[in-house]
Amino acid sequence: MKHFKQSDTIIAIATAHGTGAISVLRLSGDDAIELVDRYFFSKKGVTKKLNEVNSHTIHFGVIKNDAVVIDEVLVSVFKTPNSYTSENVVEISCHGSNYIQQQLLQLFVKAGARLAQPGEFTLRAFLNGKLDLSQAEAVADLISSNSATSHEIAMQQMRGGFSTKIKVLRENLVNFASLIELELDFSEEDVEFANRDDLKQVILSLQRVIQKLIDSFEVGNVIKNGIPVAIIGKPNAGKSTLLNALLDEERAIVSEIPGTTRDVIEDEVTIDGVLFRFIDTAGIRETTDAIEAIGVSKTFEKIKQSSIIIYLFDVHELSRTELENIIDELRPKIGNAQLVIVGNKIDKEDIDYTRKEFSTLGDLLFISAKDNESVEILKKNLVDLFDKRAVNVTETVITNARHVEALHHTQSSLHKVFDGLNANQTTELLATDIRNALHHLGLITGEITTDDLLANIFSKFCIGK
Amino acid sequence: MKHFKQSDTIIAIATAHGTGAISVLRLSGDDAIELVDRYFFSKKGVTKKLNEVNSHTIHFGVIKNDAVVIDEVLVSVFKTPNSYTSENVVEISCHGSNYIQQQLLQLFVKAGARLAQPGEFTLRAFLNGKLDLSQAEAVADLISSNSATSHEIAMQQMRGGFSTKIKVLRENLVNFASLIELELDFSEEDVEFANRDDLKQVILSLQRVIQKLIDSFEVGNVIKNGIPVAIIGKPNAGKSTLLNALLDEERAIVSEIPGTTRDVIEDEVTIDGVLFRFIDTAGIRETTDAIEAIGVSKTFEKIKQSSIIIYLFDVHELSRTELENIIDELRPKIGNAQLVIVGNKIDKEDIDYTRKEFSTLGDLLFISAKDNESVEILKKNLVDLFDKRAVNVTETVITNARHVEALHHTQSSLHKVFDGLNANQTTELLATDIRNALHHLGLITGEITTDDLLANIFSKFCIGK
Repeated sequence: MKHFKQSDTIIAIATAHGTGAISVLRLSGDDAIELVDRYFFSKKGVTKKLNEVNSHTIHFGVIKNDAVVIDEVLVSVFKTPNSYTSENVVEISCHGSNYIQQQLLQLFVKAGARLAQPGEFTLRAFLNGKLDLSQAEAVADLISSNSATSHEIAMQQMRGGFSTKIKVLRENLVNFASLIELELDFSEEDVEFANRDDLKQVILSLQRVIQKLIDSFEVGNVIKNGIPVAIIGKPNAGKSTLLNALLDEERAIVSEIPGTTRDVIEDEVTIDGVLFRFIDTAGIRETTDAIEAIGVSKTFEKIKQSSIIIYLFDVHELSRTELENIIDELRPKIGNAQLVIVGNKIDKEDIDYTRKEFSTLGDLLFISAKDNESVEILKKNLVDLFDKRAVNVTETVITNARHVEALHHTQSSLHKVFDGLNANQTTELLATDIRNALHHLGLITGEITTDDLLANIFSKFCIGK
Repeated sequence: MKHFKQSDTIIAIATAHGTGAISVLRLSGDDAIELVDRYFFSKKGVTKKLNEVNSHTIHFGVIKNDAVVIDEVLVSVFKTPNSYTSENVVEISCHGSNYIQQQLLQLFVKAGARLAQPGEFTLRAFLNGKLDLSQAEAVADLISSNSATSHEIAMQQMRGGFSTKIKVLRENLVNFASLIELELDFSEEDVEFANRDDLKQVILSLQRVIQKLIDSFEVGNVIKNGIPVAIIGKPNAGKSTLLNALLDEERAIVSEIPGTTRDVIEDEVTIDGVLFRFIDTAGIRETTDAIEAIGVSKTFEKIKQSSIIIYLFDVHELSRTELENIIDELRPKIGNAQLVIVGNKIDKEDIDYTRKEFSTLGDLLFISAKDNESVEILKKNLVDLFDKRAVNVTETVITNARHVEALHHTQSSLHKVFDGLNANQTTELLATDIRNALHHLGLITGEITTDDLLANIFSKFCIGK
């Protein structure tokens, strides 16, 4: 890990690419302040030395290369260790033209700064002890969060909630490990410092907590990536109308704020802070008849990917018996997904009749997607279905596949410890398995890291963070 | 103009849209600091009052709405009058997620801030006397500048170079105007305070300077929008290969810097700091035979839009006589555009023979677009052609259509003054024309403005500037 730690000065554009009112370039490293100072001239002709100003102060002036003014800028100075990376950091706020951004980048690269790798600022923050690894990972999650729930979980993780939980688990295990290791030191004397029954109890309670964290990943994952929903039904049941009704309203709200661009994939919609993702909605739009083709493996697979399946039917087209048959055929094929049966194209005049007609089928929802009638109720139902499935979001939720993998490894090591205890295994073997469990837990918060692991984690960051 | 001046607190996202490492929200107005203070909590639990901190300082903490942490942020405080707008300004540097940006925007809008109109920050800077109007316009030009020359001109204008020139012109005219106005006060006495011959001299010299500025617009315009170049020639002359050779090299240079996105229109290329724009290059790629179709008005029009026309021919296909005929046919049709005749597909072995073959046709350039042979020389020639046409860029260059229009009006008023002097017009009429000239000059730097004018100028800005 050692060779990762560097303090040469790195630079990157920290704001989104493209043209904006302003852009921010960020430099971090031993020479960051000195480097900017060489090209920075404060406006009033006073030669202000950035080395001499206070940390956390802002200075107006120009960046000049020889006689050529590249831009009028604001320079923010952060002195080690009071900065994001804990190194000297300078942020240059310039006019948001691509040309100026590039000129400034090139100027400082020529002067000796190095273009930062993705996530390198946060990597340095981690290596300098400003954040643990799971907090660092949460920074990336936070930036890509696009709903209230994913934002909340990432924020909680960045602020250390999840790390604290893991650290407590690890400490419990470390306490026992140290007793076991002590036994190894005195192995000739055949003593037992660690009460085997107590150890079993600790292992069991650790396993319970870890399993709960592992289980939370299913929820965490859908929170992060959106709850997969499939809308299926016969042609002309109104699937695309319904999809538009679900999507459009949200769009209208967003576009109330001028100048916002929704950087999200089409056919995602956030309802009440929960992100729903409509699976292969292109398919929804062009599908001929999902149900008739249900034997076809592709449709089948799509349904399998969904957490929620909306079966939409035209109340004027299907009789109760037909619907019953379809539902009976459908149920065994949808696995654990939740099925929501929705009758579309209701006529307000006839709604009571319609309800009666299908009443034996249980709690169906009747809407008119076209007239936006009761679509709100469907939305509320979707959110409720999520809430039922979810562990409470205020509890710790795993959203990171790497973490869940480490937890699985921890769990399987703990299993071995437990089995070993039952089988009266040697202390050496017990110690090895406990060490393995500790190792995997340590990978999560970064007590234990490898170059590959770090490279892999931070390569997924955006440049400038 | 008065009702434009407001000091309510405005807010906008100032960085480019989309997801980046960080984003910056900017607030300006009487209550900007107080408003942020309500939701900002410095990390260490110390309740730091932003009202009490020094100007130009940065503060780390969280923005909280009730108990919910929206983000960990850096808050920069600028106190009136030492800010961009000269009002209280706060910049919030947050994590660059769209979700967070929107949450913060909505929080402060609910708290009483107003979403800023495009350019409203700069409008306020103008209304508060931080910039004159042409400097304010240069801010927008600077942000959209995409070549060294357009950047240099915008920077010069923003830093007041052009304004100073206009102000000097206007002062000269004001001096004479005041003498003329004085004559009006004493009109019954029939005195002449302003010597008519001296006045004529001043008018003539003003007209010379203004004409030079007007003339510079042609250059200024191409600098800003790119020099229009058409590549024409028979099918298979290698037009698209040449275009790619001209474009690709530059792309390679740009992509050396990781994470840069070129926000420019396809088929523009900057050579030696000069922007060239290839007219309807889609057409270049699919054209059948531009020369044969030269009678067709569309092709003809495209050629008329170009400043430079590259006629490309295959050295193995055309005989000297054929080429001569084509050139003779072409020349009268290209107006003021510069014609560059380029022989393509040269064979290194036969280059001397080829040169000899076409030698009577003057200074032709021979290249191989495919092998990138002598393409560099063609590029240098393009830049040289521009330099010959250009007034020296270090002189004042007009790039703004509004300015050139005002200068035209000024010029025509000055004409009337001059004609009036020759015709011994009454002082009243002279005074009116001089006042008109002053009015139009004043429109440029904003001594004279109207609501419409300001609305029109600033509506073209991006939001957040």
